Amino acid sequence: MDVAIIGATGYSGAELVRLLHGHPHVSRCDVFSSSQDGMHLSESFPHVGDIGGAVLHKLDIEALSRYDAVFFATPPGVSGEWAPALVDRGVKVVDLSGDFRLQDGAVYEQWYGRPAASAEYLAKAVYGLTEWNREAIRGAVLLSNPGCYPTATLLGLAPLVKERLIEEDSIIVDAKSGVSGAGRKAGLGTHFSEVNENVKIYKVNAHQHIPEIEQMLQTWNEAVAPITFSTHLIPMTRGIMATIYAKAKQPLSLGDLVDLYKTSYKDSPFVRIRKPGQFPATKEVYGSNYCDIGLAYDERTGRVTVVSVIDNLMKGAAGQAVQNFNLMMGWDEAEGLHSLPMYP
Amino acid sequence: MDVAIIGATGYSGAELVRLLHGHPHVSRCDVFSSSQDGMHLSESFPHVGDIGGAVLHKLDIEALSRYDAVFFATPPGVSGEWAPALVDRGVKVVDLSGDFRLQDGAVYEQWYGRPAASAEYLAKAVYGLTEWNREAIRGAVLLSNPGCYPTATLLGLAPLVKERLIEEDSIIVDAKSGVSGAGRKAGLGTHFSEVNENVKIYKVNAHQHIPEIEQMLQTWNEAVAPITFSTHLIPMTRGIMATIYAKAKQPLSLGDLVDLYKTSYKDSPFVRIRKPGQFPATKEVYGSNYCDIGLAYDERTGRVTVVSVIDNLMKGAAGQAVQNFNLMMGWDEAEGLHSLPMYP
Amino acid sequence: MDVAIIGATGYSGAELVRLLHGHPHVSRCDVFSSSQDGMHLSESFPHVGDIGGAVLHKLDIEALSRYDAVFFATPPGVSGEWAPALVDRGVKVVDLSGDFRLQDGAVYEQWYGRPAASAEYLAKAVYGLTEWNREAIRGAVLLSNPGCYPTATLLGLAPLVKERLIEEDSIIVDAKSGVSGAGRKAGLGTHFSEVNENVKIYKVNAHQHIPEIEQMLQTWNEAVAPITFSTHLIPMTRGIMATIYAKAKQPLSLGDLVDLYKTSYKDSPFVRIRKPGQFPATKEVYGSNYCDIGLAYDERTGRVTVVSVIDNLMKGAAGQAVQNFNLMMGWDEAEGLHSLPMYP
Amino acid sequence: MDVAIIGATGYSGAELVRLLHGHPHVSRCDVFSSSQDGMHLSESFPHVGDIGGAVLHKLDIEALSRYDAVFFATPPGVSGEWAPALVDRGVKVVDLSGDFRLQDGAVYEQWYGRPAASAEYLAKAVYGLTEWNREAIRGAVLLSNPGCYPTATLLGLAPLVKERLIEEDSIIVDAKSGVSGAGRKAGLGTHFSEVNENVKIYKVNAHQHIPEIEQMLQTWNEAVAPITFSTHLIPMTRGIMATIYAKAKQPLSLGDLVDLYKTSYKDSPFVRIRKPGQFPATKEVYGSNYCDIGLAYDERTGRVTVVSVIDNLMKGAAGQAVQNFNLMMGWDEAEGLHSLPMYP
Repeated sequence: MDVAIIGATGYSGAELVRLLHGHPHVSRCDVFSSSQDGMHLSESFPHVGDIGGAVLHKLDIEALSRYDAVFFATPPGVSGEWAPALVDRGVKVVDLSGDFRLQDGAVYEQWYGRPAASAEYLAKAVYGLTEWNREAIRGAVLLSNPGCYPTATLLGLAPLVKERLIEEDSIIVDAKSGVSGAGRKAGLGTHFSEVNENVKIYKVNAHQHIPEIEQMLQTWNEAVAPITFSTHLIPMTRGIMATIYAKAKQPLSLGDLVDLYKTSYKDSPFVRIRKPGQFPATKEVYGSNYCDIGLAYDERTGRVTVVSVIDNLMKGAAGQAVQNFNLMMGWDEAEGLHSLPMYP
Repeated sequence: MDVAIIGATGYSGAELVRLLHGHPHVSRCDVFSSSQDGMHLSESFPHVGDIGGAVLHKLDIEALSRYDAVFFATPPGVSGEWAPALVDRGVKVVDLSGDFRLQDGAVYEQWYGRPAASAEYLAKAVYGLTEWNREAIRGAVLLSNPGCYPTATLLGLAPLVKERLIEEDSIIVDAKSGVSGAGRKAGLGTHFSEVNENVKIYKVNAHQHIPEIEQMLQTWNEAVAPITFSTHLIPMTRGIMATIYAKAKQPLSLGDLVDLYKTSYKDSPFVRIRKPGQFPATKEVYGSNYCDIGLAYDERTGRVTVVSVIDNLMKGAAGQAVQNFNLMMGWDEAEGLHSLPMYP
Repeated sequence: MDVAIIGATGYSGAELVRLLHGHPHVSRCDVFSSSQDGMHLSESFPHVGDIGGAVLHKLDIEALSRYDAVFFATPPGVSGEWAPALVDRGVKVVDLSGDFRLQDGAVYEQWYGRPAASAEYLAKAVYGLTEWNREAIRGAVLLSNPGCYPTATLLGLAPLVKERLIEEDSIIVDAKSGVSGAGRKAGLGTHFSEVNENVKIYKVNAHQHIPEIEQMLQTWNEAVAPITFSTHLIPMTRGIMATIYAKAKQPLSLGDLVDLYKTSYKDSPFVRIRKPGQFPATKEVYGSNYCDIGLAYDERTGRVTVVSVIDNLMKGAAGQAVQNFNLMMGWDEAEGLHSLPMYP
Repeated sequence: MDVAIIGATGYSGAELVRLLHGHPHVSRCDVFSSSQDGMHLSESFPHVGDIGGAVLHKLDIEALSRYDAVFFATPPGVSGEWAPALVDRGVKVVDLSGDFRLQDGAVYEQWYGRPAASAEYLAKAVYGLTEWNREAIRGAVLLSNPGCYPTATLLGLAPLVKERLIEEDSIIVDAKSGVSGAGRKAGLGTHFSEVNENVKIYKVNAHQHIPEIEQMLQTWNEAVAPITFSTHLIPMTRGIMATIYAKAKQPLSLGDLVDLYKTSYKDSPFVRIRKPGQFPATKEVYGSNYCDIGLAYDERTGRVTVVSVIDNLMKGAAGQAVQNFNLMMGWDEAEGLHSLPMYP
């Protein structure tokens, strides 16, 4: 199987390089970049050393058409422009950007502040929240990989929302993210001395992942109202924690709640549910494709708290992309993703 | 003015040493420790060097009675045991521990899991949330300094709750704290390799600061229902951010909301309100006694978001203690606390 | 192949679990602990989840004798006591502790301050600095895995010392290490608030890795004099950088020096030499078994600077242990270790 | 006393703002910026809040001439261009940049790669290593404040070099610095995700502080040969540790060595010498103007190790600048600098 990565000079791209070079069914993995063609990837990322296939190529539809699958780990707009031609030529596309995540182009334009991709291809795109969309993913030619925050949030909310256990207008998500989620482009907001020993909130009520989360929640339960969703920058490189609050419609038993989650994810190798009273920390999934979830119910307030953690570059980006790629190719979804988290 | 610090070998104690040694009205500042008497403080904290008055003394009521004021920066139970005798002898006591924060001893015993202090002295204790209790503080002999989380949370919620702008059963506080809040006692939970590059939630629905917050909120508005309050450990040393969510009773204007806060705190030198669209980061109050607050209102959800940040060892402990001490002594509340935050 | 890990509740042990569970030739990997038998490893390390073979067993020679190989990731003294009986029963032992690293028991007792292992087994032990001792390692039954600092230092110095290019009495090593090297036992010295935003020097002129380094250097060149070796604790979890200084006997060409290193390590898949003018950072080997080396020669001073970096838990502990295990079993030394570094 | 700060939007400038706003003899402190005039400093640095005198003014000789003293905390070239005109008008200048540190313009041009300031004013500039140059500083009109690395290194080496206790060709300095030393300009090299959990060496044998250090050492002892000096970027914001190695000419007694240092600095309030066997950590001077020094002598190698730590923005920049300013104005050198380090 030959694959190409577009945008290998970013963090998600580098993570794809790591995963696909260790993938048992990938025999060739080449890298493309719109800006740095001709350069060896190690000039940008010395950690890769002299691995094969790492000279960056210029984006070219003919060249890209020869691969079985193409991964886009690119800024907004790139896959929206290039993916359709590849799809037309029968190349499977896995898009890690947000270009094809929102089915309604108008909503995209409102939240992203830029033109949406073509409606025709938005309609073809399959949303790759693996655990809840496997059948469609298996048949996808254009796979839209979920955002990092939506992945942690949606996996944490799915059983509650689908089983209609919570008030539909009561969902509040307080998310915390490591800095790698902001990408590799340097700026004052990610300058070490500004981020270290600091917590910052950003894009309050305005994060582009809000409509992505609501779109999926409303697919599961059309009564879900707009959510409150906040994002905080944490002085660490990797990891997302979504702390999710919602009002239960009826008093709940924590044991039953944990059982519901265990049942919901019993065939999902990458979702691990903690025992009552135990909660995951972000480092416990570091470098892995796991999403770990802990649950609480407070009788004083009648609220459920869900704690959902992922590695934003893995289950939140490259890891889930490979998981989806596996399904698209007919393989076991865990191929190339078996590694335990790296701890400490 | 002669003062004593009990518990100078902890972090809040060390911060008191720093502040009181630079205080213009303190001529003598001695240190006491139940466990390490005879030792010079620099053996435990080399950063203090050979400052005067830093040989640790054993706790002794006679000796302590000679000071004008005594600060307790001690574990649970110490001030509950020792403060009454000092108060009886006319010594002003500033207690940074939780022993006198909850007026109802039964509530203390439920949340702290240990015996409460004597009801007689609980009744005498004045709760030192400076900005909202100045008159009582000026006359206090036994001052109970607020917890770090309650300080950030209550300053952030006060105008909303007092003006009855939010649904009383809708308050959710998602708090993030640096590790120094856990004190200096080493344990696996604060071991560097376990905390670094990690976010952890802890004491879910069980933090002892919950009743302290609710007690004050219900003083302001008896209709306030139990709150949801979560605490997260962040890989940094100092700083607390409380991200507070509540449902507005009526649609709000953000401009009006910011004006309300500015008016509420116009005579409070240590509370700074950000302009609409701007939010504080914890580092922006680092090492200072400020509490910075930012506000948002989301028309989609009808919810207010309040972001309140403090340095947990300053406004959340030693700084507010000195602020209260200043009032108790009849001085300007900002004496010895003028320093700007240290940035970066 | 069935293997056992003794000391799986420490950091090197956890890293062995990660590597051996992903090793293509290991069918069974069980864990042992002297203190926590009966417990599932996930109670101590939630990141491992419900992997198989993770119930901790009590140390027992009969039980351990049934494995093809046993790894010790234990505090001083454990392998010295238990390994001989296993070796006598034909079990291959890989010891990550320092018990068998110093051939002379008297030197061990001087630097470690405790009794040495039996001289008979010290003589049987093979020092596992893989790149320079492959033949002996292939035949080893008792493999003594090098310390983390010695690995980085010796790989960095080997070509210079063996080719006698530097003054033998001029070697100074300034080493910087992440905190995981101190293990998982909590103490004030590794308490987050004490280590974060801090650099500390420790065990000045007294680190037990000094004689280990000198022993190997003097094997290569008996004229090597005592070295100066300093260790610094850096506010990060993983990674070691050894910055090595030595006086050249003759003016050197940097190009020739780099070529010498490239030639020396041309058959060593885990040593990567940087181009002239480029130097490795610790993060560029994070989570991998690589040792990356950069070189400089200063005409003003006539000194060589060698910069050698490893991940202390990988090439400095578990990774090199697996590399040696591979050779002992007759496999390719890179089996189970192919993963690229995790970046960022 | 009225003072102006040019370059207040950088980190050293912000630290000057903090110090000078708390200085007992400064009644007015205004800020200037070549690029951001008209803006309030809080737009760039929200931590300062609404302090007075914080609207940024455009650089203008007439306006600047009205101040008693002007501080330059500017990039290379600015003070070289502007300071002479101020000096000519009798304004005292404290320059935190490197423009006037090297007496020989040719050496400046070689190491900085840009034109040197005028020779006439280079000759007028007084090098502000306070502890060793007080008399000249008291009479200075153009004060050149030392670099951060030279301050830590020179204070650590002075007694050894002046007393000629070490071989003059044996000095090796391995320095570690927090990231704030690189300033506030964002770039990939200071991007959080690249620096966090990482140690990097930079400017190997090429740092512009090398000639500054050698110039002073050779003033003390003309026999001092070129030194080896390496700089490492540490994942923390503030702090420098210089670990200094040198060969003793004769065997030394550690006790005598410590006594020599204590005597050398007995009238220097900001240099603190540790007892034999104790070494300072960078955090022990955090936010303060101290330089803490620890010493070791190794009989095995005949080498001295000096460990010298400072806060790079305080004693390494703004703190020492104020200390020098105090002397230039005839005040006690510690005015406005009494604060203890902030710990933790």
